[in-house]
Amino acid sequence: MKYFDYKTRVRYSETDQLHVAYYGRYFEWFEAARVEYIRVLGISYATLEEKGYFLPVVEAQCAYHRPARYDDILVIKTSVNMMKNTSLRFYYEVFIEGQTEKLASGTTTHAFVDPSMKPIRIPELIREKIEVVSTPSA
Amino acid sequence: MKYFDYKTRVRYSETDQLHVAYYGRYFEWFEAARVEYIRVLGISYATLEEKGYFLPVVEAQCAYHRPARYDDILVIKTSVNMMKNTSLRFYYEVFIEGQTEKLASGTTTHAFVDPSMKPIRIPELIREKIEVVSTPSA
Amino acid sequence: MKYFDYKTRVRYSETDQLHVAYYGRYFEWFEAARVEYIRVLGISYATLEEKGYFLPVVEAQCAYHRPARYDDILVIKTSVNMMKNTSLRFYYEVFIEGQTEKLASGTTTHAFVDPSMKPIRIPELIREKIEVVSTPSA
Amino acid sequence: MKYFDYKTRVRYSETDQLHVAYYGRYFEWFEAARVEYIRVLGISYATLEEKGYFLPVVEAQCAYHRPARYDDILVIKTSVNMMKNTSLRFYYEVFIEGQTEKLASGTTTHAFVDPSMKPIRIPELIREKIEVVSTPSA
Repeated sequence: MKYFDYKTRVRYSETDQLHVAYYGRYFEWFEAARVEYIRVLGISYATLEEKGYFLPVVEAQCAYHRPARYDDILVIKTSVNMMKNTSLRFYYEVFIEGQTEKLASGTTTHAFVDPSMKPIRIPELIREKIEVVSTPSA
Repeated sequence: MKYFDYKTRVRYSETDQLHVAYYGRYFEWFEAARVEYIRVLGISYATLEEKGYFLPVVEAQCAYHRPARYDDILVIKTSVNMMKNTSLRFYYEVFIEGQTEKLASGTTTHAFVDPSMKPIRIPELIREKIEVVSTPSA
Repeated sequence: MKYFDYKTRVRYSETDQLHVAYYGRYFEWFEAARVEYIRVLGISYATLEEKGYFLPVVEAQCAYHRPARYDDILVIKTSVNMMKNTSLRFYYEVFIEGQTEKLASGTTTHAFVDPSMKPIRIPELIREKIEVVSTPSA
Repeated sequence: MKYFDYKTRVRYSETDQLHVAYYGRYFEWFEAARVEYIRVLGISYATLEEKGYFLPVVEAQCAYHRPARYDDILVIKTSVNMMKNTSLRFYYEVFIEGQTEKLASGTTTHAFVDPSMKPIRIPELIREKIEVVSTPSA
């Protein structure tokens, strides 16, 4: 898989008094988006954790170009733009549904670890299903 | 102990586009307030969990009288207004520091349970330190 | 309308270290659920605010019977169980999709106010579309 | 001013089921930290907004080295490591109080804008009070 489009509607709780979505909330949406990306590969993140695989975030980043507002339906175009032995990086682009102007873009880099937090090689099962994309900048 | 005053400042992230603190955030403040109440008794909630005691919330309630706003310093006057064998109820009143008008009042009722979620009697250690207050309404 | 079923999946960000959904998050779900209830009536809450109607929460309450867990798909059965001149109360019941055991139930009571926070009569447009339900207890 | 140390205790609501503070919550702490940094300069962010200055986040980033856990008292060492005409960048380092190992480090870049979101020059009043630090990497 190359891309997965995750949709979410901006909740009132996600706005702040600037009348825009709070900048820290994007990282919750990114999390929900990558979980669905993984699910579409045929694996649930809940199952991964039960099997003893964890994907803690080691780095997160977001650039905000235009605000998202209350009640906007957002599309978070999710992909993987880096995959090494024991780590991978998700890349996210945020749009309002049906529009082409990018609101934001971001990345989260994850280590693949066992329950003792020791890095482990990303299982083939997952590795073979991910098509790494190249992105203009990340 | 009868009362503990917990102080917190309203963060930008806790506001919404109505320019007031989001109603769901009060329950995070209540949680932080009761943790400090317990700590002042000489017990940390972290230690309780390590010892196998958990206090899940079985009921929560809040009445909102006046809004809390960004950057307000809030005082959350915290007490226990009910204690039974295996459960207790915290009572919270929210003020702006130095002011007497109540912004909100609420309760959280907790079961005392072991790791298997079976109700257990509240340990004497805790029981003897709490002075149950009577409140106008809860 | 009598009932609206709002669906949401429990995010990782919504769990806490007890391995359950944090009790304060239910109020975010309730907010998202009532917004969709209103939308199904043919009115968006965003539009209401633009027209100068606001529905601040004056009271919120939730009883927690069983925990919701990460990745659970929740159905929040939403209705109105009280409607007066200038206020109404939403009633929520939380289930795991496809299951019949209730995880939680709660209410939020709202005033209908104008931009100066003065109570105003609920518009007929809204009033006539809501079928008030009776609930076992609220 | 060069550095400001902001302290915060990790709330239960800020943990997730990995038993660590949720990665998105760091951005709320960064926000609280920079607000206090500005306050120590003699200006409150609330006042800035009243005067028509806003500092939206245009970029945010965090690297996570070691987890923060429930009840940890965190010190967020806050500084400014870039200041241009109309933008500046805060730099944050997160420690457990009394310890020297860095848990995380991050940045937030802000535009200085007027109510119409047009970039404006950072007022001298603020500019002259900030001592820009150089950081190993940001």
